[in-house]
Amino acid sequence: MKKLKLELGENSYPIYIGSGLLSKLELLTKYIDSKKVMIVTNETIAPLYLAKVKSLLTDYLLKEVILKDGEEYKTLKTANIIFTALLENKFNRDCTLIALGGGVIGDITGFVAASYQRGVNFIQIPTTLLAQVDSSVGGKTGVNHKLAKNMIGAFYHPKCVLIDIDTLDTLDNRQYSAGMSEVIKYGLLGNIELLKFLQDNIDELMLRDKSLIAKIIFQCCSDKANIVAKDELEKGQRALLNLGHTFGHAIENKLGYGVYLHGEAVAVGMLMAARLSELEGYLSAQEVLEVKNILKKANLPTKINAKINAKDILLAMLVDKKVFDGNMRLILLKSLGDAFICSNYKKDLLDKTINQFIAA
Amino acid sequence: MKKLKLELGENSYPIYIGSGLLSKLELLTKYIDSKKVMIVTNETIAPLYLAKVKSLLTDYLLKEVILKDGEEYKTLKTANIIFTALLENKFNRDCTLIALGGGVIGDITGFVAASYQRGVNFIQIPTTLLAQVDSSVGGKTGVNHKLAKNMIGAFYHPKCVLIDIDTLDTLDNRQYSAGMSEVIKYGLLGNIELLKFLQDNIDELMLRDKSLIAKIIFQCCSDKANIVAKDELEKGQRALLNLGHTFGHAIENKLGYGVYLHGEAVAVGMLMAARLSELEGYLSAQEVLEVKNILKKANLPTKINAKINAKDILLAMLVDKKVFDGNMRLILLKSLGDAFICSNYKKDLLDKTINQFIAA
Repeated sequence: MKKLKLELGENSYPIYIGSGLLSKLELLTKYIDSKKVMIVTNETIAPLYLAKVKSLLTDYLLKEVILKDGEEYKTLKTANIIFTALLENKFNRDCTLIALGGGVIGDITGFVAASYQRGVNFIQIPTTLLAQVDSSVGGKTGVNHKLAKNMIGAFYHPKCVLIDIDTLDTLDNRQYSAGMSEVIKYGLLGNIELLKFLQDNIDELMLRDKSLIAKIIFQCCSDKANIVAKDELEKGQRALLNLGHTFGHAIENKLGYGVYLHGEAVAVGMLMAARLSELEGYLSAQEVLEVKNILKKANLPTKINAKINAKDILLAMLVDKKVFDGNMRLILLKSLGDAFICSNYKKDLLDKTINQFIAA
Repeated sequence: MKKLKLELGENSYPIYIGSGLLSKLELLTKYIDSKKVMIVTNETIAPLYLAKVKSLLTDYLLKEVILKDGEEYKTLKTANIIFTALLENKFNRDCTLIALGGGVIGDITGFVAASYQRGVNFIQIPTTLLAQVDSSVGGKTGVNHKLAKNMIGAFYHPKCVLIDIDTLDTLDNRQYSAGMSEVIKYGLLGNIELLKFLQDNIDELMLRDKSLIAKIIFQCCSDKANIVAKDELEKGQRALLNLGHTFGHAIENKLGYGVYLHGEAVAVGMLMAARLSELEGYLSAQEVLEVKNILKKANLPTKINAKINAKDILLAMLVDKKVFDGNMRLILLKSLGDAFICSNYKKDLLDKTINQFIAA
C-alpha cells in the first residue's frame, strides 16, 4: 500500500492506494466521527462490493442509497434522493457519507456532503479507473444541469480517499478505457515522463497489468495533489487539469449525458485541443498523431461519432465554466507534456477544428 | 448611514445600515466584479423596488428572477429556476447575484451563489425586518427539504449587506412582527440592555419609529457579527442564535411551511424555551411572563394555534440539525439575557412543555 497526502492546511487528507484495501477498512475508522454512516453507491457497484464494505463496518449504524448508474443521473433530483434518505434516517451533522463507485457517485455524494446541514464528513472509495486517477481527488463536487455539466456544486474535500485497485477487476473495458483517457491527460498536460511511460506500456496497461496500474494511479494522484495543493479553487494552474474538458463537456451535453462516457468525450476533446494547438503553430502534425495513436491504443474515440451541428458544440462550449465574459479560455499544448491556458487563439481555427472532428 | 464589519479574515464584509440606501447603490459597485448581475426577488418585492434598483445599476447587464413569495417556495426546485436563468443568460464565474427581499430570498440566493459553478459573488439587500436583523448576516444559506427546514445549504458569505430601513415602510404588520421576534431573541439570548430597551419602547417600535428601528437593527447586526466572527461554523456559541428555533422549525414543518411565518414560529418557540427553563428551575414564573408580554406586545403568537400531536412536534425537533445521536441539545435561558446550550434537561419536562403550548 502507498500513501499520499493532499496538503490543504486543516483540510489536508490522505489518499491510500493499493491492492486489497477494501479488506482494510479499519483505515477509515479514524475519519468517521459517529456511528451513523451512509453508503452511496449504484446498481452496478452494489452487487459487487456493497456487502463486503458493510461486512467490514459492523461497528456502525450503516444505511445505504443505491442509485441508478450513469452520468444522466448526476442531477439535483438524484441528490435529493440522498438528502431524503439522510433525513428519513435522522442523520445529523456528525454523520459520514461514503461514496462507493465511480466519478458520478463521488461527485454527487461530495455535493450532498457539502450541502447536507451545511456540511458533513465524507469518504471516497472510487471503484473506476477514472475516479481513482482523477475525480475522487481534489474536492470538486457537483451535479449537472440540463444545460451544462457540473454547473451546480461545491469545492468540498473528503476526509480520505481509499483506492483499492482490485476493484478494477470488475470494471468493463469501455469504462477502463475512459479512465485511461484521464491518465493520458496527466501525461499530456504536464508530465512527459508519464506520457512516455504510457506510450511504452500501453499494451500491458490495456491488459491490466496490476503493478503498472498501481504505478500510474499513484503518479496521477500525486500530480493532481500537487496541482490542487497550490491552487485549490482553480484561480490559475489547476485549470490545466481541464485539458480536453471544455470540448468534452460540450460533446457530452449535446449528445446527451451517458451517450459518450466522460472519459471518451475528454479523449476526443484532448485530440481537438491538440489539433487546435497544431493550427496555432504549437504542435507538429507528428505530435498530434502521437496523441491520436495513444488514444487509439487505449480504445478511445478520436472523433465525434454523431451527426451534430458544429455551431451547437461551440455554443455549448461557451456555456462551459471556463468562459469569462465571452472570452473563452482553452487549455492548449505548447508541446506534448506542456499545457497552457490560452485566450488568444483564432476563432476561425477553433471553428475549423470543431468541423474536422464531426462525422460527415 | 452606519457601517459595521463582520470580521472573517479574507471573507470579511461590510454591513451598511441607514435610510435611503437604495438610492446609494454606488456603495455596491466595488463588490461587483463583472457586468453580469442577476437580481433575485419575489412577486411582492418586485413591484415595489425592482425598478428602482435596476434604474441605479445601469452600467451593468442586469437580469432578474422573480420568484413566488413564501417559505413554501424555499426549495431545491426553486433554486433550480435560478440556476436555469443563470445558464440561459450565460452567466459565468465572475457574475454577481443580488438578493432583494426577505429571508427566503436571501437564503435561497445565497445557496445558489455558493453552488453555481462552485461559488460566485452575491450581495444581500434585505427588505424585511427579519432579514435585516438576522438572516442576511452570517453566511447561513440554504433551502428546506419537505422533511425539515434549512437542511440543504452552505456557509457562504455575501460580499456586502445593504440595509435600507425605508424598505420597512412597505412591510405588512404581520411580517414586521415576525421580524421583531428575532429582535427580541437577541435581547433574550445575550443582551439584557436590548431587552430592557425593547420593553421600554415596544409601543413606539410597533408604530415604526424610524430612529428606534435604526438603533435596534444596528444592535442586532452588531451582536450577530460578533457572535459569527468568533464561531462562523457554529461549533459552539453561535448555536445560541438558535434560541426558540428547534421548537420553531418543528412548528413550521408540522403545520406546513408558510402557515406560521418563521418569526412567528420562533416566538412560540422562545416562549416554550423559557417555559422549559422555568420547569428546569432557571427562570421564575415572572420572567416567563415577561417573555410572554413582550411577544404579545409585538403582536406575536404565544402558543401553537392548531390541532397537532405533541409527539409529532417532538419527532420533528429530533430531525432538526441541533440533534447529535439522539441527544437533542436545546437553547435554554439561565436568566433573561443569558442563554446556554443544554443537553441534560429532563425529557418529561420537555414533553410537558410541548403539551402546554398546543391548543386543546
